[in-house]
Amino acid sequence: MVEKLKRLLIGRPMKSTALAEEKLTKLKALAVLSSDALSSVAYGTEQILIVLMTVGFAALWYSIPISIAVLGLLLILILSYRQTIYTYPSGGGAYIVAKENLGLPFGLVAGGSLLVDYILTVAVSASAGTDAITSAFPALHDHRVLVAVLIIALLTLLNLRGVTESASILAIPVYLFVIAIIFLIISGLYQLATGAVPISGPRYGVPVGGISLFLLLKAFSSGCSALTGVEAVSNAIPNFKAPAEKNAAKTLMLMGGILGALFIGISLLAYWYGISPNPKETVVSQLAASTFGRGIIYYLIQAVTAAILFLAANTAFSAFPLLAFMLAKDKFMPRMFMVRGDRLGFSNGIIVLGVFSALLIVIFNGDTENLIPLYAVGVFIPFTLSQGGMMKRWVSNRPAGWLLPFLVNTVGMLTTLSIALIFIITKFSQIWIVFLFLPLVIFIFQKINQHYQDIADELRIDIYREKPEIKGSIVVIPVAGITRVVSSSIGYAKSLTDNVVAVYIGFDEESIERMESRWEEWNPGVRLIVLRSRYRSIIKPLVKFIDTVEWKAAETDHVTVLIPQFITKKWWHNILHNQTSLLIRAYLFKRRDVRIATFPYHLQK
Amino acid sequence: MVEKLKRLLIGRPMKSTALAEEKLTKLKALAVLSSDALSSVAYGTEQILIVLMTVGFAALWYSIPISIAVLGLLLILILSYRQTIYTYPSGGGAYIVAKENLGLPFGLVAGGSLLVDYILTVAVSASAGTDAITSAFPALHDHRVLVAVLIIALLTLLNLRGVTESASILAIPVYLFVIAIIFLIISGLYQLATGAVPISGPRYGVPVGGISLFLLLKAFSSGCSALTGVEAVSNAIPNFKAPAEKNAAKTLMLMGGILGALFIGISLLAYWYGISPNPKETVVSQLAASTFGRGIIYYLIQAVTAAILFLAANTAFSAFPLLAFMLAKDKFMPRMFMVRGDRLGFSNGIIVLGVFSALLIVIFNGDTENLIPLYAVGVFIPFTLSQGGMMKRWVSNRPAGWLLPFLVNTVGMLTTLSIALIFIITKFSQIWIVFLFLPLVIFIFQKINQHYQDIADELRIDIYREKPEIKGSIVVIPVAGITRVVSSSIGYAKSLTDNVVAVYIGFDEESIERMESRWEEWNPGVRLIVLRSRYRSIIKPLVKFIDTVEWKAAETDHVTVLIPQFITKKWWHNILHNQTSLLIRAYLFKRRDVRIATFPYHLQK
Repeated sequence: MVEKLKRLLIGRPMKSTALAEEKLTKLKALAVLSSDALSSVAYGTEQILIVLMTVGFAALWYSIPISIAVLGLLLILILSYRQTIYTYPSGGGAYIVAKENLGLPFGLVAGGSLLVDYILTVAVSASAGTDAITSAFPALHDHRVLVAVLIIALLTLLNLRGVTESASILAIPVYLFVIAIIFLIISGLYQLATGAVPISGPRYGVPVGGISLFLLLKAFSSGCSALTGVEAVSNAIPNFKAPAEKNAAKTLMLMGGILGALFIGISLLAYWYGISPNPKETVVSQLAASTFGRGIIYYLIQAVTAAILFLAANTAFSAFPLLAFMLAKDKFMPRMFMVRGDRLGFSNGIIVLGVFSALLIVIFNGDTENLIPLYAVGVFIPFTLSQGGMMKRWVSNRPAGWLLPFLVNTVGMLTTLSIALIFIITKFSQIWIVFLFLPLVIFIFQKINQHYQDIADELRIDIYREKPEIKGSIVVIPVAGITRVVSSSIGYAKSLTDNVVAVYIGFDEESIERMESRWEEWNPGVRLIVLRSRYRSIIKPLVKFIDTVEWKAAETDHVTVLIPQFITKKWWHNILHNQTSLLIRAYLFKRRDVRIATFPYHLQK
Repeated sequence: MVEKLKRLLIGRPMKSTALAEEKLTKLKALAVLSSDALSSVAYGTEQILIVLMTVGFAALWYSIPISIAVLGLLLILILSYRQTIYTYPSGGGAYIVAKENLGLPFGLVAGGSLLVDYILTVAVSASAGTDAITSAFPALHDHRVLVAVLIIALLTLLNLRGVTESASILAIPVYLFVIAIIFLIISGLYQLATGAVPISGPRYGVPVGGISLFLLLKAFSSGCSALTGVEAVSNAIPNFKAPAEKNAAKTLMLMGGILGALFIGISLLAYWYGISPNPKETVVSQLAASTFGRGIIYYLIQAVTAAILFLAANTAFSAFPLLAFMLAKDKFMPRMFMVRGDRLGFSNGIIVLGVFSALLIVIFNGDTENLIPLYAVGVFIPFTLSQGGMMKRWVSNRPAGWLLPFLVNTVGMLTTLSIALIFIITKFSQIWIVFLFLPLVIFIFQKINQHYQDIADELRIDIYREKPEIKGSIVVIPVAGITRVVSSSIGYAKSLTDNVVAVYIGFDEESIERMESRWEEWNPGVRLIVLRSRYRSIIKPLVKFIDTVEWKAAETDHVTVLIPQFITKKWWHNILHNQTSLLIRAYLFKRRDVRIATFPYHLQK
């Protein structure tokens, strides 16, 4: 039943040799990997406006220079990451780049913050997408946590089915979103040009009382949330069709160009329309409603916006399992993240990501605004480390013409470092938990690594000198009477060794005497040892007896306890058998050096 | 930790030889066994008044003749059961008497309805006791389900500690209740005699319009709920100190006398005071309040009433586990009801009773009035069968002077049968579920019995002819690499048999080749068999391989799968090991004829 449901949801298992087929073309890669970056358009401008609005409507004109600064930052990042792609064609995530060039501790900081960040990506994108839906249908506002969690469940399933299939499903909405936003921008500008909508933004360039450098930096850092997601391409190069690095670089440039155009377009339109942020309706929703009215086009734009935000969450579903795989390969995460599932994806990573992000949404009650700062700061830490690693690399290797790429990475590093610092200074009250959580994650990485190393040391043998050691063996069989099961168990034990004892635990003299005399009559060729239990416990006298046997056997013999166990035909029959065997098994299991053999007896009726 | 908590709540374990000390003296037995019967005083009269009140206040005088009829019935029952005690000194519950004399089916009907009834006893008594509390403290009315469930939990604990100890704790309130009610009756009569309280009941003997035979019978059957519990003594004779039957008979007579006096006293008082039933305050509470005012004496009476009702529930805690033990001994209930716990009580019976009665209270929302009819009908079925069995016995055995006791039992049987019929006729809408539930219980009895008989047939061996059969043996060890665990496992397996194979499941050619060459270098004296798994599953190829081995071995060899299993030092380490062994174990367990041996490897770090 479970198996059938699994097949229906996930599809039939795939052979390992099918792995090569799962590579992405440029166009599909753009859909899978750029939705995170592109979808930031849906909330980037809004984040800037929210900060500026704390001073007043007149301050909103600052959004234009701030947006241009963000755009410049985007250009720097794209150029910087383009170099990473060519240098690390096998996947240059911040973890790898920082680890190789700056050393393991920096790599773990980058890896840890990225892991946490992918979870936040899913949570932020799913709740922002839900915001787009509730802007259009205010009645759904009270169910937004449920909607977001359902979307995450759906994405988890799609990803368990496999990368290519989900890429095919997901490519269309990304292009629709790009077309829709471009159409919105052009239509909006046309309306403004014809005067159908009056230009109603505050006057540009007029200094506003109460504005401070601190506030402007805060607004700028908020706007930088639009840049989250640009690193996705460089992390996922192995997913590209050959030539992977060239295709990845092209995809990155294309993505940067589209993102820049959409972002500045929305910012300009919002300014000229004089739109101020509203907790119940997103900026994009306001723009679409003002341009087209609440008609079919408006609802289409909202639908496509919601769709791309859900796809943004999907980016993390490609990136998180890959990063977890790399960390597990280096023994910093549990081995289970290395196992490929039935459909060749890293199922465990996909499932863990789905569960944690859904949890985050429930904890934060689907509140986008409080999640975004956490999300952004988590991105800029690995950005900085990754580019710092590239700088170190250029200086160490000094290939021909290294100075220009070194300068590019240096500018990139300094910029992202500044933004990270601005975040920490201006939004510390919202992001402090990252600085509690990040050390914890790194501590766990270290603990896991330590454990795996300890185990490897403990289990390693010198295959030239250490061979299996053959010792004597004694088998102990607890018996409760003389039945077919006992007879079979003894037969089995005697097939293994001559050294077999049966142990009977008696509660009263009458039953002990009866057992002893019947055993003598039966004479199965095995000695019966009788233990008296005055407290009617079976476990304690048995364990005490085994301790004695173990002590006598010491290094010379293996002690095996053979436990007959009924396998009932119907589950409810288990209630009718006291299944003391399970208890004995659980109890003995924790003891050193006792082997436990189970003799399953399948009841016929 | 769990062990310590258990010791604190239940006490230290007791030796089996301490069993004899746990017998009850007459006085203690009266406390433990008669609280059910005596406590009926707290609701018996009220049940009659509730029915009569449907016609009107003027009809309440009928409660006097009805109460006298109930009293007569009590006399008949006591005499009838007195004979049972002498005939069945080892415990003459309805189950035993009906089974031995009328045959097994009647025995099971009696046993089944008693089992269900004991659960109802606990539920009814606990909720009626809670009613006494909420009559005094109306603020607690909303929490009465919680109060009742807590009381049941407390009783369960007391009974797990052991019979004698709970008898010592519980004896005092029973005597206090008897004294308190006698004091209430005398004070009330004194008040009436001095005219301090005017006689305000309706005129006696005046025919009331609207009264019907049906209604009178209904009121009579309601009053018979006061008789529930008189069978407790005859069920529990083995709990008495020697001479058990004599002591039991005396206890029964004493109980009958006290019960009759209290019941008629309350009925008379309620009539002369002109009290009508009130869903928010019990009749006893009204009487006490009218006689003494709501002062200390009133609260004492309420407290003592609540206490005896909770103790009534305790009667079932003695009777249910004993009956379950007898049914389990006859293989109609699971064997676990035969096990004596640490404190020598039948712990499983006590716990099951506690859980089911608490469930009933939650389901019925602590509503006494709806539980009582179910409870009463469940009592009168075994009453009837038990006395029918006695009749049969006198006729079959015909000892000297058998006619008088035969007549006594016949009158008893006819009376209780009539009452059972009256119940069915007048209250069918409330009790129909009993006739659905009872057949189900008996069906389950039969199924359990069938299963135990099947198993016994299947496991029985002829000890003179069938001896353990020694066969060959082959051990299969799944390995994932060459480690110390693998080396130890092979050493262990070779200590048992020479016929050992290691099985490696490879996902790709590279790792298979490496494993094969390393194995050859190591040369542990065991053949390595490599299975290729293209779908990255470990279980399926392994199971397929074992099927082949099993098929080849057929009848000649035992096939043992030896599974190395890590025992980690800290629980969270389990996350770090894929513990495929557990999966393999669970999967193989359901297969026929594969033995499973676990080789526990205790990790040091």
